[in-house]
Amino acid sequence: MESSDLMAPADKPMVDREVHTPETFNHQPKIVLDGEMSLLLDSGVTLAPLTIAYQTYGELNADNSNAILVCHALTGDQYVAGIHPVTGRPGWWDNVVGPGLPLDTDRYFVLCANVLAGCMGSLGPPETNPKTGKPFALSFPLVTIEDMVRAQALLLDHLGIDQLFCVIGGSMGGMQALEWASRYPDRVFSAVPIAAAARHTAQNIAFHEVGRQAIMSDPNWCDGDYLNQSKRPQQGLAVARMTAHITYLSDAAFHRKFGRLLQDSQEKTYGFDAEFKVESYLRHQGSTFVDRFDANSYLYITRAMDYFDLAAQHDGVLSMSFRETPVRFCVIAFTSDWLFPVSESQAVVQALNANAANVSFCEIETDKGHDSFLLNEPEFFDVLNGFLRGAAKHRGLI
Amino acid sequence: MESSDLMAPADKPMVDREVHTPETFNHQPKIVLDGEMSLLLDSGVTLAPLTIAYQTYGELNADNSNAILVCHALTGDQYVAGIHPVTGRPGWWDNVVGPGLPLDTDRYFVLCANVLAGCMGSLGPPETNPKTGKPFALSFPLVTIEDMVRAQALLLDHLGIDQLFCVIGGSMGGMQALEWASRYPDRVFSAVPIAAAARHTAQNIAFHEVGRQAIMSDPNWCDGDYLNQSKRPQQGLAVARMTAHITYLSDAAFHRKFGRLLQDSQEKTYGFDAEFKVESYLRHQGSTFVDRFDANSYLYITRAMDYFDLAAQHDGVLSMSFRETPVRFCVIAFTSDWLFPVSESQAVVQALNANAANVSFCEIETDKGHDSFLLNEPEFFDVLNGFLRGAAKHRGLI
Repeated sequence: MESSDLMAPADKPMVDREVHTPETFNHQPKIVLDGEMSLLLDSGVTLAPLTIAYQTYGELNADNSNAILVCHALTGDQYVAGIHPVTGRPGWWDNVVGPGLPLDTDRYFVLCANVLAGCMGSLGPPETNPKTGKPFALSFPLVTIEDMVRAQALLLDHLGIDQLFCVIGGSMGGMQALEWASRYPDRVFSAVPIAAAARHTAQNIAFHEVGRQAIMSDPNWCDGDYLNQSKRPQQGLAVARMTAHITYLSDAAFHRKFGRLLQDSQEKTYGFDAEFKVESYLRHQGSTFVDRFDANSYLYITRAMDYFDLAAQHDGVLSMSFRETPVRFCVIAFTSDWLFPVSESQAVVQALNANAANVSFCEIETDKGHDSFLLNEPEFFDVLNGFLRGAAKHRGLI
Repeated sequence: MESSDLMAPADKPMVDREVHTPETFNHQPKIVLDGEMSLLLDSGVTLAPLTIAYQTYGELNADNSNAILVCHALTGDQYVAGIHPVTGRPGWWDNVVGPGLPLDTDRYFVLCANVLAGCMGSLGPPETNPKTGKPFALSFPLVTIEDMVRAQALLLDHLGIDQLFCVIGGSMGGMQALEWASRYPDRVFSAVPIAAAARHTAQNIAFHEVGRQAIMSDPNWCDGDYLNQSKRPQQGLAVARMTAHITYLSDAAFHRKFGRLLQDSQEKTYGFDAEFKVESYLRHQGSTFVDRFDANSYLYITRAMDYFDLAAQHDGVLSMSFRETPVRFCVIAFTSDWLFPVSESQAVVQALNANAANVSFCEIETDKGHDSFLLNEPEFFDVLNGFLRGAAKHRGLI
């Protein structure tokens, strides 16, 4: 489902326009908040005018109380459901967002915005710098998870939504959900951080750094200026994606999916072609990714995640991030997630407990790893359904 | 300690010569088995003449019964102790091999050979192909762990050592130790595979594939022909090393070493320089590695590890690899090793138990990860000391 025809209160100015994108991205027109607003970033730089590309699914109710903000992960975007205009494939949460699904679009107004520094129409490195008429590239300022959330808050202002019924997201989306609940406790009725963490660990940073080095050492990166030079650092970006992808699965998941099976034959070929099935799979992950993602955006967003440390915003005390919070939390973690392990979610729950917050913690037993939040995990859906139904009852939505 | 002057029975022909190496490697002369021998590889290719570069420490006793073969890991080499001639730093097992150390050179004759396809003087991609006068590069045949072990067996023939007192190694060295015990049970009195596995898993292969892609997508790789073109794929090799290095540590080790500490300042710089300490550390790991290692060798050796599957040599039944084995085993694993997890060592122990083998299994509690076998782990040293002393008693060495 494309939501262009469903969305936006009529009293708000809205612009449908073709946003600058690299030729290869071949975007379809999208909904953008193309405001006169400006945003002061953590770095001290002011972004103006601010452009936020977003999609919506379902309808906002009369008192604007049924909005669910979905926050996407590192390589996600605003196309959570329906057919993605670039890839032609279903949106990344097509199994969660839709009529009768956990994020029921017959009941809720589901909203997802491309993060700041992204590459699907929100202001970011591949977008045109109005002052130069050329892509920002590395002249785009570094952003933080906090900046991403502030930008989303401006979008909500624009849409006339004072309080979200729920903010939800997995991985980096979960970081944003935590930041939302911490920064705007009165604008969030409930929050569902999934497979997330309140900080990036040294190992997390290490994996991101490897990805960035892979991109930046690709000669076609051209010190970030590749769009102006009609080049693309596809090899480097593919290697970055392949490395990251390993961290999204688990050893057990790899074993079950591929084992040691050879790709084409029963016999070793004694060469460097993709000989094992797992190699072909990874190469495919790398090569399809570069068609839909911008390398500089990858640098910026990974850096934003590295910077994230919610406790550091509060003198190193995580519980201070949620002081007397009125928000209802459902914290979800997956047992085989070694990228954002259960212990990181437990740290969040402990911080919430220290505030006597209303918090439900679900550790879901699965061997599918970090990406479990994107997969069909019945227990995950049950937890989501149950929590949202309970919260909706309290909010008077059902 | 350089061992050139200590080594080799006088009745064996031995050649000291300068071996071809890329200019940047700046090798010192090393001991080589420069034989008229040939080796039929698993791929069906015959390597002749075979060159094996090796080092020895301590003296062979009168009945040639006190030899310990150390098998090195992926990026290790024959310089286990003393000062490494290329790096100028201590050998990689300088804390384990030496007078009074667990591999006591006052008692044992310790021997380590550069693996086939390596880049420290044994026959491998950077060595000169006598037929062309140029480096083999990708014309070098693919090798397996089995081939590496067969080459070492030829070296022992040459040295007149019928039976090793012990074969020992960590990681890929442990794979070789397992292969030795399986293939040549009568030539091995005891075997100590450490942080090892009887096969490479899909996740292991995946990480290696990422490293290979990083190298092969570096334009300076020149389809493997970089030595002839006076180039080096340093960026790609550094990225490969950085990725691998993450897998050698643990989340906890990264956290303890670096946490989220910034490199130079207390404030974020909002840029892509190495801002966190962990980034500087990784970049250092990458940049120092490329000075001492050959990119093609990295491709070949990672592939050899990927191919390793001891059970597959015996109709998929691992226990058949050790049928009625007379070898005494000490299998050592580290609790925080997620690259070669404890479960892989347990599978080996189970296969040995199915043969009523003489096996001791030690799971050492540490949060330092896979590389624990290179670090000062007192419990690890105690285990090694105890096992070797017991075995030496049984062998009549003490």
